[in-house]
Amino acid sequence: MFKNAEITFLGTGTSIGVPVIGCNCEVCTSDDPKNKRLRSSIYVRTEETELVVDTGPDFRQQMLREEVRNLDAALFTHAHSDHVMGFDDLRRFTVWDDDELEIFATEECMERLKGAFPYIFDGMNRYRGYLKIAPCLIDGPFSVADLEVTPLPVSHGKVETIGFLFSRNGERLFAYIPDAKELSEETQELVRGIDLLILDGLQPELHWTHLSIGESVEIARDLRVKETWLTHFSCRANYAALEPGLPEGVRLAWDGLRLEV
Amino acid sequence: MFKNAEITFLGTGTSIGVPVIGCNCEVCTSDDPKNKRLRSSIYVRTEETELVVDTGPDFRQQMLREEVRNLDAALFTHAHSDHVMGFDDLRRFTVWDDDELEIFATEECMERLKGAFPYIFDGMNRYRGYLKIAPCLIDGPFSVADLEVTPLPVSHGKVETIGFLFSRNGERLFAYIPDAKELSEETQELVRGIDLLILDGLQPELHWTHLSIGESVEIARDLRVKETWLTHFSCRANYAALEPGLPEGVRLAWDGLRLEV
Repeated sequence: MFKNAEITFLGTGTSIGVPVIGCNCEVCTSDDPKNKRLRSSIYVRTEETELVVDTGPDFRQQMLREEVRNLDAALFTHAHSDHVMGFDDLRRFTVWDDDELEIFATEECMERLKGAFPYIFDGMNRYRGYLKIAPCLIDGPFSVADLEVTPLPVSHGKVETIGFLFSRNGERLFAYIPDAKELSEETQELVRGIDLLILDGLQPELHWTHLSIGESVEIARDLRVKETWLTHFSCRANYAALEPGLPEGVRLAWDGLRLEV
Repeated sequence: MFKNAEITFLGTGTSIGVPVIGCNCEVCTSDDPKNKRLRSSIYVRTEETELVVDTGPDFRQQMLREEVRNLDAALFTHAHSDHVMGFDDLRRFTVWDDDELEIFATEECMERLKGAFPYIFDGMNRYRGYLKIAPCLIDGPFSVADLEVTPLPVSHGKVETIGFLFSRNGERLFAYIPDAKELSEETQELVRGIDLLILDGLQPELHWTHLSIGESVEIARDLRVKETWLTHFSCRANYAALEPGLPEGVRLAWDGLRLEV
């Protein structure tokens, strides 16, 4: 049994996943299961609660693969399609009439969720089997059962998104930042020296809205992070080719990977 | 080579797919591939064009499975989440700057698409790799290359949705009606005596927004349809148990099934 929490990588892919529709590159045609990437998301389990961060279009497939049977909350980093379009499939976690799932999102993200799923927010569809939510606006640290969660502002191209720092009993467990080009000063201070950081590391090549692998390695070193797992990969990231070249303490995550903290 | 068109069932499942997250029933735990159902959608190919009807959350997975490399149009029956949430993944079919995908939807459905994917409709994201669309409002019959398409109004619980009748050279090829509880008089006349009808047939039990298998069998008989394939199944529809009991000319479709007309 894990000490504080178990983290499962539901997906480690960028917005279009890997393989990419219609792409013939060596990663997209590779048989390596570590090169098969659904849209980025994690599932976090503690003794007292179960939650997901983001629900992209692959959410149903991810829940089936990991045989998740219960969720108490869904947290959102931002409202890009690859992070929210599986939202309706959360309905299987509010099957009974009195079930309610806590939805944590910034005001901007919540508005986008409302725009995409108006019938879930208008309070008119509270039938058995439909998704029933308790929307919770993020405007500072919050709790989900035994987890203390601190939003981590980051910039992601033209938009501001958030990652999350998860703590328990006042002790930092890990941070999850799947979409970022730059970490704000505040975020850098919050994760400096942390034991476990999960960070955007799109590909070896530079990109204007995502950290490259090299940029993330540098951040991990500068912030003296003990263990960093990169995620949110494009098909330019070939697992077997890149993994051996990484410095100590930095690894590439894969779909289905479980970590304990 | 097919005479007029080839139809591929991308998915034959209802809104939550089969298996259903967290369900232990005999269909959800079955090994029969014909009981594994992604969200309902079809891919239609003729000598001159390729199109899909609906893009649910499983759209990327479906395109990869069927190795679809080109699409000229996407048609929408209605804007329920299980039919539209994969919309952004259409981007892989407009990779080049001058690509544009024709999107056919009723005004109501188009508004819902805009609400869910505002960045695709605002004309601001016409970069390489982003989805670039030519929205086409449906208000009567229209053409996609060599296919003549007639919308088929049906009622689906509290909402009105449409199916599609596909013709070529003035000859009716087939009709696709995945979500319906009742066919309008107009729709009945349009499909009466047709060679091939693909019709909602949720499950043996009655449902207030979907035709049951028994109701669909009756419609097929009344309208003297030559060949009817049912689709949009819940996990109450066990392929192997139900298939032998169907009358001649009515079959249950499955994911990956190909028909030629």
